[in-house]
Amino acid sequence: MPEQEQSRRRARGGGGAARRAERSAVNFDTAKYIERNIPNLEVLNEEAIEIIEANAETVLEEIGVNFTDNPAALQLWREAGATVVGERVHIPRGLARKLCETAPARFTQHARNPERSVEIGGRNLVLAPVYGPPFVRDAEGGRRYATMEDFRNFVKLGYMSKYLHHSGGTVCEPTDVAVNKRHLDMLYAHMTLSDKPFMGSVTEPVRAEDSVKMASILFGEDFVQNNTVMTSLININSPLTFDATMMGALEVYAKNNQAAIISPFIVGGAMAPVTVAGTLTQVLAEVLAGVAYSQLIRPGAPVIFGAFVTSIDMNSGAPTFGTPEASLVTYGAGQLARRLGLPYRSAGAFCGSKLPDAQAAYESSNSLNMGLMSGVNFMLHSCGWLEGGLVASFEKFVLDADQLGVLHGLAKGVTASETDQAMDAIREVGPGGHYLGCNHTQANFKSAFWRSDVLDYKPYEQWADEGSRDSQALATARVKKLLGDYVQPYLDPAVDQALKEFIAERKTSEPDAFG
Amino acid sequence: MPEQEQSRRRARGGGGAARRAERSAVNFDTAKYIERNIPNLEVLNEEAIEIIEANAETVLEEIGVNFTDNPAALQLWREAGATVVGERVHIPRGLARKLCETAPARFTQHARNPERSVEIGGRNLVLAPVYGPPFVRDAEGGRRYATMEDFRNFVKLGYMSKYLHHSGGTVCEPTDVAVNKRHLDMLYAHMTLSDKPFMGSVTEPVRAEDSVKMASILFGEDFVQNNTVMTSLININSPLTFDATMMGALEVYAKNNQAAIISPFIVGGAMAPVTVAGTLTQVLAEVLAGVAYSQLIRPGAPVIFGAFVTSIDMNSGAPTFGTPEASLVTYGAGQLARRLGLPYRSAGAFCGSKLPDAQAAYESSNSLNMGLMSGVNFMLHSCGWLEGGLVASFEKFVLDADQLGVLHGLAKGVTASETDQAMDAIREVGPGGHYLGCNHTQANFKSAFWRSDVLDYKPYEQWADEGSRDSQALATARVKKLLGDYVQPYLDPAVDQALKEFIAERKTSEPDAFG
Repeated sequence: MPEQEQSRRRARGGGGAARRAERSAVNFDTAKYIERNIPNLEVLNEEAIEIIEANAETVLEEIGVNFTDNPAALQLWREAGATVVGERVHIPRGLARKLCETAPARFTQHARNPERSVEIGGRNLVLAPVYGPPFVRDAEGGRRYATMEDFRNFVKLGYMSKYLHHSGGTVCEPTDVAVNKRHLDMLYAHMTLSDKPFMGSVTEPVRAEDSVKMASILFGEDFVQNNTVMTSLININSPLTFDATMMGALEVYAKNNQAAIISPFIVGGAMAPVTVAGTLTQVLAEVLAGVAYSQLIRPGAPVIFGAFVTSIDMNSGAPTFGTPEASLVTYGAGQLARRLGLPYRSAGAFCGSKLPDAQAAYESSNSLNMGLMSGVNFMLHSCGWLEGGLVASFEKFVLDADQLGVLHGLAKGVTASETDQAMDAIREVGPGGHYLGCNHTQANFKSAFWRSDVLDYKPYEQWADEGSRDSQALATARVKKLLGDYVQPYLDPAVDQALKEFIAERKTSEPDAFG
Repeated sequence: MPEQEQSRRRARGGGGAARRAERSAVNFDTAKYIERNIPNLEVLNEEAIEIIEANAETVLEEIGVNFTDNPAALQLWREAGATVVGERVHIPRGLARKLCETAPARFTQHARNPERSVEIGGRNLVLAPVYGPPFVRDAEGGRRYATMEDFRNFVKLGYMSKYLHHSGGTVCEPTDVAVNKRHLDMLYAHMTLSDKPFMGSVTEPVRAEDSVKMASILFGEDFVQNNTVMTSLININSPLTFDATMMGALEVYAKNNQAAIISPFIVGGAMAPVTVAGTLTQVLAEVLAGVAYSQLIRPGAPVIFGAFVTSIDMNSGAPTFGTPEASLVTYGAGQLARRLGLPYRSAGAFCGSKLPDAQAAYESSNSLNMGLMSGVNFMLHSCGWLEGGLVASFEKFVLDADQLGVLHGLAKGVTASETDQAMDAIREVGPGGHYLGCNHTQANFKSAFWRSDVLDYKPYEQWADEGSRDSQALATARVKKLLGDYVQPYLDPAVDQALKEFIAERKTSEPDAFG
């Protein structure tokens, strides 16, 4: 992977941030992003793909998409050759796909610790935590509004999670900080409590600008202009609507060469048709329009084909997770993204359960496995999601993060070297023997099997003696252990001081706003 | 699928059992076995397959396999061209694979209700419950030795589970009945409390003979000799050992044209090498030898390529479930089975957890998903398995059985009919609208999304008002509801009487034996 090696060298040579990170004394064990050695599961045949792609072009041309409260966007679309009627943009067949061609197939998102930079695209999978919940839950404190203290604890847990490659963004909404200022505290937490890559703010264009400014302090202004150091989440108001707030944030990031996930937000049956093929048509039309728009802002700006997909319980209207229909959309969207030559974001540890119980785990595991098999390149919400995304759960964060190790193991696939073939072991042991003590086992057992760091593998009697703890109780103990062991990664005090000054200045420049 | 239709017609016309079943008044909703419309995930490339297949032949020829305490088997092998030294059978390269050619690629296992007969092989997946646990657990009674009453309750739950196609075998070990007589009561429970297909006894050859005799009473003697009405589990004593008890049962079933799963029992690192490729080599060698032996007994006898695979926690020696290495073996074994042209048995709702908690669900869901994607045709243990198979859990039975609906939904794949394309819906709703009320949604919502029958989809406040129940508590309620609603399927009283008389006679013919 020469591009990646090049970009790593570039990052290392790229200035103060890299050198500062290398002086960091404490280095927790973090797995490299996943490089798949297994195929993707492809559920769409050629005929279905062609129908869906043709229908998406029909949607863009005939129905069109709305860019609301955004005259500048309408003007850009007119200049590109679209027909604009009011706020409705009708995109001639083929134009959006043509515009998407300048978007890179893969890109590096740099972390301040260059060992933790990630390569998004190709056969890779980068895992990031839950995003957006206004509530948190743990066994002892129950369900409550999230605070900045909770936010910091989640960032710490993410930093210490071996299989999490990315620190994420709004790991929970710190509701004790003013809405117009919390992005500053959230970014500061990601920048100082972790050295993994992170996401920028999207809730107002000015907050996206603040994100770019803070990143420029952390990485250096030149570095940020020439490299991608943030990947941020731009949701489409499905169906077919691009609002001014999200597009404003996208404009800021694209202009500054920072990455954006262009992501339809689909609850099947509500924001999209009840069928898989119909939903895929709409998802593709929306992504084509959104990615094309990013390339109108700045050709070559890094973007990701996003698809947040759940189904709906038609009895209650509740979104449902880990369902087969959402999985089929996710598999299909992966194929459509690869045909477009774009990195793909979807899946996550989704669940509707109120507790980190069996329901939560069934639904999450269905979705995590589907994410790996569908060729996802960037998986947001890969740990900590509870209750349809209303709640970030501390226990579920560490349980899910542990399961991400399963994805790493699966992605390795099967190799057949001499050692893998193990013919000497089979000869040594023979019929009726056992392998525990044989030479091959002794030489290879340490790396042979993935092992959970939190689940129970004890004999029944020992488990019962120790209090018959369920997974939630084991996870509570692990959260405490990790937070107790946490050590902050080194950051140049001058950079830290500059970040603090920027935040203080921004906070005093306007009054607090809530809601 | 003309063969299948043929076999169904044959079953319907096939005698008293079919006509009797059709008179059954109560008919619970049972989904047809899964017919996959999605591809398999294939983890082995051509080179790896060829290495593993060549190595398996080397194992059979050079190392050989043991057929213990079984001079007749050794004689059959000698006559077939193998070299026998003591109890060790060295099988010349290619011989075992050649012998496997007479085994059918697919077969029908008839149920006494012909609507519930299953077609094992091809793109199909037949789901059967947990097999073998000496303990049971439920929330109220805790963990305890299983009894015949528990056994009957599991058969009832299986009968009422929509997504379970098969009644299974030893759904738990009824420890309150003598070891030498419990098979009679177990078979009677499957035959009378359910009308789904079932498994025969394998713990002694004479018990396999009893199984055939009882099946002959149920289906008619001619029908049994000409059709497969039982699929039974023949475990190989891995590594490379075929013991006289299991082979004796196999001999009975093969002679009577009844199906057998020839199944290596692998705890990776103990009964097989610690590597995936090494384990696959041994699994293939063992299945080749076992299936070849079944064809020496009776060419054309129906058999299934089995692979029970778990990994091991090298710290404690405990078997571990839902792990990536076990999944990779399962995917690879599926490819090897298809190359051999045999139906494939693997996967299940495996877990090591002591409780039906998040651990149980993560591990089970990993394994269930892998089972679907690896092309399994017969999945034993698809619901109810707990604590490494030591415990059959009532709550987990209904939770897992519900998740089997997810597999049914995924297997449907994606179709792209006019209705699926939903272009009229996308036109009707347009940018910024919503789909809940549109014509297409109203016409299609009932069949659009899989919906759990046990998990929680309620709003938070309602869920909290109703007692903040976790999945286990919801499952406890569902177990009670199902057992309360249970109605026994009709069985001709004369057949029932004949079964009872056979059992009474057999029970009085020998003293009770325990252990």
